[in-house]
Amino acid sequence: MPTVRVYVTLKPSLLDSAGRTVAGALQKLGYQELEQARIGKLIELQLSEVDDARVKEMCDRLLANPVIEDYRYEVLQ
Amino acid sequence: MPTVRVYVTLKPSLLDSAGRTVAGALQKLGYQELEQARIGKLIELQLSEVDDARVKEMCDRLLANPVIEDYRYEVLQ
Repeated sequence: MPTVRVYVTLKPSLLDSAGRTVAGALQKLGYQELEQARIGKLIELQLSEVDDARVKEMCDRLLANPVIEDYRYEVLQ
Repeated sequence: MPTVRVYVTLKPSLLDSAGRTVAGALQKLGYQELEQARIGKLIELQLSEVDDARVKEMCDRLLANPVIEDYRYEVLQ
């Protein structure tokens, strides 16, 4: 069954407060090489058939918020 | 600056209730081709230098919970 992996990320211009918290925690743990962390979502869909237009629609309607988030996806067979 | 993308997913044997909710919502919206959805995290780290052992350590100590989650990562230059 085909799997679609959707990657949802906050738009780069927006402040990612969860990412900042993670970055601060890692730096406090001694990982000084860390400059920035940003957190997004990874959604794996198993579909009986893949139709590009419908996958885009799912992302726009439910999986991502196009106002504040970007997304991309890849189809794995 | 190198970027490391960490993908954190719930172990396959565990029930993903958020994923179930998303799957149910998409099916109700008419996407009957959807069989399953699972939700994970995508963490993008910007590092001044990449040391594999240290990236693994960051994942094990803070980014993933090895008891219930799997992770993998890739390094983008």
